[in-house]
Amino acid sequence: MTRLHTLTAHELATRLQRRELGAEAVLRDCLERIAEREPAVQAFAHLDVDQALAQARALDAGPLRGLLHGLPLGVKDLIDTADLPTAYGSAVYAGHRPAADAAAVALAREAGAVVAGKTVTTEFAYFHPGATRNPHALSRTPMHTPGGSSSGSAGAVADHMLPLALGTQTAASIIRPAAFCGVVGYKPSWGRVPRGGIKSLSESLDTVGGFGRAVADVALLGAVLTGDARLLQPHDGSTPRIGLCRTPEWPQADADTQAAFALAAQRLGPAAQVREAWPAALPDLVSLQKSIMAFEMARSLSHERTQHRARLSARLLALMDEGMAIDGATHAAHQAQAALARQQAQVLFDGVDVLLAPSAIGTAPAGLDATGDPLFCRGWTLLGLPCIHLPFTRGTNGLPVGMQLVGRFGDDARLLAAADWCLSRLLA
Amino acid sequence: MTRLHTLTAHELATRLQRRELGAEAVLRDCLERIAEREPAVQAFAHLDVDQALAQARALDAGPLRGLLHGLPLGVKDLIDTADLPTAYGSAVYAGHRPAADAAAVALAREAGAVVAGKTVTTEFAYFHPGATRNPHALSRTPMHTPGGSSSGSAGAVADHMLPLALGTQTAASIIRPAAFCGVVGYKPSWGRVPRGGIKSLSESLDTVGGFGRAVADVALLGAVLTGDARLLQPHDGSTPRIGLCRTPEWPQADADTQAAFALAAQRLGPAAQVREAWPAALPDLVSLQKSIMAFEMARSLSHERTQHRARLSARLLALMDEGMAIDGATHAAHQAQAALARQQAQVLFDGVDVLLAPSAIGTAPAGLDATGDPLFCRGWTLLGLPCIHLPFTRGTNGLPVGMQLVGRFGDDARLLAAADWCLSRLLA
Repeated sequence: MTRLHTLTAHELATRLQRRELGAEAVLRDCLERIAEREPAVQAFAHLDVDQALAQARALDAGPLRGLLHGLPLGVKDLIDTADLPTAYGSAVYAGHRPAADAAAVALAREAGAVVAGKTVTTEFAYFHPGATRNPHALSRTPMHTPGGSSSGSAGAVADHMLPLALGTQTAASIIRPAAFCGVVGYKPSWGRVPRGGIKSLSESLDTVGGFGRAVADVALLGAVLTGDARLLQPHDGSTPRIGLCRTPEWPQADADTQAAFALAAQRLGPAAQVREAWPAALPDLVSLQKSIMAFEMARSLSHERTQHRARLSARLLALMDEGMAIDGATHAAHQAQAALARQQAQVLFDGVDVLLAPSAIGTAPAGLDATGDPLFCRGWTLLGLPCIHLPFTRGTNGLPVGMQLVGRFGDDARLLAAADWCLSRLLA
Repeated sequence: MTRLHTLTAHELATRLQRRELGAEAVLRDCLERIAEREPAVQAFAHLDVDQALAQARALDAGPLRGLLHGLPLGVKDLIDTADLPTAYGSAVYAGHRPAADAAAVALAREAGAVVAGKTVTTEFAYFHPGATRNPHALSRTPMHTPGGSSSGSAGAVADHMLPLALGTQTAASIIRPAAFCGVVGYKPSWGRVPRGGIKSLSESLDTVGGFGRAVADVALLGAVLTGDARLLQPHDGSTPRIGLCRTPEWPQADADTQAAFALAAQRLGPAAQVREAWPAALPDLVSLQKSIMAFEMARSLSHERTQHRARLSARLLALMDEGMAIDGATHAAHQAQAALARQQAQVLFDGVDVLLAPSAIGTAPAGLDATGDPLFCRGWTLLGLPCIHLPFTRGTNGLPVGMQLVGRFGDDARLLAAADWCLSRLLA
């Protein structure tokens, strides 16, 4: 018999909705997998098995709650939970108990999700890593990063410990760990998922999304978080028009990423057309994203910066110093440039529905002291566009490689439908 | 001798910066005023005199901290403070102690502000009022609302209990109480002040700002919160070009408001020109703002909506029911309309620097069971434009009336400079 934890969230949901399967049975199988694998993967910042089982039993005893009924959900530890500690990946908040669930968690619970545990984040979702290891490289020396900042969410889903997990992205924190761990990661259009109760880092950029092992998994989660049922619409069968977009950062893509891009072009066939031209009018999105993020993080984390300096990592302090050195007038000019770039970038979608672009420089780097370069995600995050990582191949070192699909702003339904179409061909 | 509490924040700051005056002396005078007046006004949700005095003494003993050095600051109880309880105006959070200061509070403290107390907010900054009374109508029966949701901040500043206070606006929650209490209220351009640690209600609309008794007061606060020193630039002496903008809601303005508008036109003289035409392309901003706010508040407050229903007011529950009945696809369409409206509204500023428009239907309504209609602020908030209320006259019932000045998006420095020019003429 297939163990339940190997099924996708969408497959589980289909059976849970028919009540052919109970929430407790699904959770128990996941907990068994967690017991086997967590000592090696270290995806969790906090687990409370009894509490999770109580949630599952309550769901089994009651009416169907919603789209996520009975699905175990991992919650990135940047996101508040009322019944589990939330430390934002920082010693400053060790043992912190929020008074309320974050809005995204409350929406997921309302739709029937079982909060199975808190997953490891880097320190305040910036560069200082947590303990999580890449589940695809546990036997290697050194081990490899799962990527960050949503390290534990990506790792837990990749390792079949959980079918679904919440993450957030400010630079690359959903797409990069999805790429390194070989799972589907979805960052919705900016502004569509409420952020209340999530540690605020950079309001112009922070976006809530999540991880699954199929496009339909993150579509379920996305529909609940945005309240937009269009995200659930199955693909209508028509062929999406895909623009192959190398981006200005292409020269930094390594051989694995360049090979995967070529492989994608081949497997997608005539649906994919090369978009060589990058709009000349666009500013350098990467440096703009860096500057906006530094300014905003230094100010959003003012309490920590001024009251808990000694307990912040050197990397975070360096970012904050950089951010505080930028004055508000410069930041306002950067914001105006970003707003203009969001308009100018629309031309990228002329004649295509979605863009296919690299997710990362290459496979997960060796070592656990860093989480890899966010380079290939900074620009899309700045533009606020919906992105989804599609895992479909391996690098020469055997670790996962994939590509991200990028949609027009607000066009998440079309992005997810195209992603579903693409992934089935990319895996063919 | 002039009692210190009667001076404006800017006047106090000038003497505090020269160290002609100590933070403790300023605070003690404010505390004396609070002791006299708070039993009648009820502006505070929480006061901790010893803690405030300790902050002031520490500032007096150390180096100058920044622009707000030694200024007592009221903090709306929607905004987290690590050392004072924060209840968001709701029984759900009675006695709640946040783990950290909100970013805006930490920035103010870093600049030397003394957090003097938490000021009353309506329930989650929506319509259910707190205890605060309008300080201009304490001897009337019935008493009059101070407006909301930043009721206590406006009341405390109006009654000379504090020189400066933080507020937030999602519909009209800074401008309306400023109008009803006869103080200067400033809502910066959307997105310029970090919102981390402030109860999230409607992310498309929520904006942090504040109250003072002079334009220079809120300029000080704004410069600290945005990091933009241009807000401090004194007016260059040139005459601003002011558009007199009645808005489509004009027929609902009462006689007091219509008379104040005419008075403003007269006192501003040739600098002010009538802008009769409202752009035909603009959608109904009021209904759009209502719908976006309902959708987002219902979801941002999902924890409270699902876990604490019995402790929410009927008015808030009605808003949430309305919001949950709107689906995500409709909301996405509303967001797209709002984004387009923000572009279309730029034409309002053709040939003028700022617009002068009503702040409220009339003076503060009688009774403490409601906080007045946000009608004249909903549209500007939706557009994200910077607004400042200027108090300069009285209604036939003797209560304060003024007008708001509205600036181009991001043009807060010009708005404040024009406001300073205008207020001196309006009070002439």
